[in-house]
Amino acid sequence: MELKAALRAQTSKAKEAARALAKCSSELKNKALLAMASRLEAEKDFLLAENAKDLEAAKQKGLAPPLLERLTLNPKRIGEMAAGLREVAALPDPVGEVMKMIRRPNGIQVGQMRVPIGVIGIIYESRPNVTADAAALCIKSGNSVILRGGSEAIHSNIAIAKLLQKAGEAEGLPPHTVTLIETTDRQAIFELLQMEESIDLIIPRGGEGLIRMVVENSKIPVMKHDKGICHTFVDASADLRMAEEICLNAKVQRPSTCNAMETLLVHQQIAPVFLPKIAKRLQEAGVELRGCPKTKAILNKWCNQEILPASEADWKTEYLDLILSVKVVDSLEEGMSHIATYGSQHSEAIITQDYPHAMRFLNEVDASAVFVNASTRLNDGFQLGLGAEMGISTSRIHARGPMGLEALTCAKFIIFGDGQIRK
Amino acid sequence: MELKAALRAQTSKAKEAARALAKCSSELKNKALLAMASRLEAEKDFLLAENAKDLEAAKQKGLAPPLLERLTLNPKRIGEMAAGLREVAALPDPVGEVMKMIRRPNGIQVGQMRVPIGVIGIIYESRPNVTADAAALCIKSGNSVILRGGSEAIHSNIAIAKLLQKAGEAEGLPPHTVTLIETTDRQAIFELLQMEESIDLIIPRGGEGLIRMVVENSKIPVMKHDKGICHTFVDASADLRMAEEICLNAKVQRPSTCNAMETLLVHQQIAPVFLPKIAKRLQEAGVELRGCPKTKAILNKWCNQEILPASEADWKTEYLDLILSVKVVDSLEEGMSHIATYGSQHSEAIITQDYPHAMRFLNEVDASAVFVNASTRLNDGFQLGLGAEMGISTSRIHARGPMGLEALTCAKFIIFGDGQIRK
Repeated sequence: MELKAALRAQTSKAKEAARALAKCSSELKNKALLAMASRLEAEKDFLLAENAKDLEAAKQKGLAPPLLERLTLNPKRIGEMAAGLREVAALPDPVGEVMKMIRRPNGIQVGQMRVPIGVIGIIYESRPNVTADAAALCIKSGNSVILRGGSEAIHSNIAIAKLLQKAGEAEGLPPHTVTLIETTDRQAIFELLQMEESIDLIIPRGGEGLIRMVVENSKIPVMKHDKGICHTFVDASADLRMAEEICLNAKVQRPSTCNAMETLLVHQQIAPVFLPKIAKRLQEAGVELRGCPKTKAILNKWCNQEILPASEADWKTEYLDLILSVKVVDSLEEGMSHIATYGSQHSEAIITQDYPHAMRFLNEVDASAVFVNASTRLNDGFQLGLGAEMGISTSRIHARGPMGLEALTCAKFIIFGDGQIRK
Repeated sequence: MELKAALRAQTSKAKEAARALAKCSSELKNKALLAMASRLEAEKDFLLAENAKDLEAAKQKGLAPPLLERLTLNPKRIGEMAAGLREVAALPDPVGEVMKMIRRPNGIQVGQMRVPIGVIGIIYESRPNVTADAAALCIKSGNSVILRGGSEAIHSNIAIAKLLQKAGEAEGLPPHTVTLIETTDRQAIFELLQMEESIDLIIPRGGEGLIRMVVENSKIPVMKHDKGICHTFVDASADLRMAEEICLNAKVQRPSTCNAMETLLVHQQIAPVFLPKIAKRLQEAGVELRGCPKTKAILNKWCNQEILPASEADWKTEYLDLILSVKVVDSLEEGMSHIATYGSQHSEAIITQDYPHAMRFLNEVDASAVFVNASTRLNDGFQLGLGAEMGISTSRIHARGPMGLEALTCAKFIIFGDGQIRK
């Protein structure tokens, strides 16, 4: 009960802050973000010292090296956090934008104005830089933010949040614009997820387990960031040089990300030509291939090469690793049907020179981003022109795909009248 | 367990239907809606006979006369349902609209295309016309719909849904585009609210109890339609003739609706002139007034009239009736602060001739619709130009205010490339 009361007090202060922040000018918000960036850089030694406590504890707990790596702050990463804050300051402010305005027959002028959502809760895992990145996007879009990071990063997160708070308040941001939950008690998450009266939106950032847990337990709307089982379909008419470059990029440029390709679909007409070439390049890049029977037969016949078979489970797996399942399909339809059955509606691409095929794929494939002749790795806020992102939403309401500043706003109707009433 | 299995089978068919429906042309959807309209009219006698069963059962249960009235179908209401279907057919199809398209430095062209949400569940109370109205909006926007109406209207709802299904399928709509839950077992609602794998959005339509129950129990995103505690603030500079007409309209034109005025705020400078006039007109229209001490003093002094006192509870009450609480405030700030404290962020209006006051109110008041010099009763899909509406959302994500066809879509990113990869 004490935990709940403490959290209630914190969230209701965040709600007050949101009300005040909604009225703050872009100028004030930008000044605050720039001051936060400078403060992080100026207090580098403090941040490194606090981070060292987390690293020490993590080593004693025997955290795996990749997790330790993610947890680590160093001067370069602190510089990147500061640069991130400055980039957000430089983006246009979405708040106050009137999206369109029409005049109705009775003379009222009706528009929709972007306004902040209110209080946004971010529940995330080990990377401490999320503390600064997420706070920046929320502040710029006029939302107060409640941060709940992973317990491994608690000292780092508290330190970063404290610096952001101090720097922001010194510039005139409302107190409690940035709130960090300082307890590592896991129960705090469950309590937060019930507080729909004071938190307007929850954004979980982390692995599948975290996201499921949040979705299962939240009374507050959640923007999901689910896994990506992403496909590239190489059509019969594809420019094969282009297809090679795109497939290689989609698989190996950063295999641990949600928009990396997990399954390659190849039209049977070009499979005998294309598969040996792409197989060679992927294998040179260290990729393990798992193929359907036709894929295996082709690779065996044309380059005398034996690869692992792909099982039903492979089509459903997000490897996040240098592994690729490969399937030969008879047609565009079979390709799209495979994607509809096994895909996670994240990022899907077709490589084709055929106009009707390009347009059918674009219109019919259901995913947060659908690509023609480009790499699925481009499904990212920076690449798609949003400037920065809060993650890639796999929800089907509010925002789908990369969530930029606009996705952190909602719209209210505004009506200019001169005496109109309802008849 | 049997109930759950039956519902699972129904919802997974609705999901299949949604996939097929997403690809249907506007032409096909419109033809289906027009055929549905004609079918309802042609089968008027069948509908009246089924409705008579509900009315008979309701009378035996002793349902209150206003509820009986809402439950009743007659030829005029059947005609209205048909007209509603035809109106939706005539609206532009939001699906496929590309909202904007930009070219990025690397040459990819990036757009956002409206696509259907998928499967929408509508949980509603007694009016059987919702069955047709809600289905029409979902179909037009490419969504399959699962309907769960109130048990009092079960025969009427089954009959309407059956006619819609038959007429739609005859025109080529995918089977199971419209699904009605035919059991009146309340447990079915709780089961449905868990089925996030096959239902994408829940829209409850009904009283506060229903909406709370849905929000509390749903794992699926919910678009809330909460109560409206709506204010009209009459500023010192208001055109008092205009203010009278607007206030009268906002309170008495249809007091039972969520966008009707519940509290009148009057600037103290004009209160001695305005209050006696508006009080007289409201009372002539049968409105019971409950005033703050200043309101009471003014009415007593200037027209020697005693009215009831407004208590703290009055400021928080959605009367939905011919009752109005009245408060004299010292300033615009006090008015906005009262609204922020007691309002439900639904519909808020200012009556003023003062430009800075109009703009401050418009920008700072947080509500689904903010009006300058117009009646809050205009917060409605038809009035604001959406053509039709699924209700007035009080959610802060996805859609706020009247939900038209666009609010029943989401957007996917589409990318036209010519070989771009992630660097």
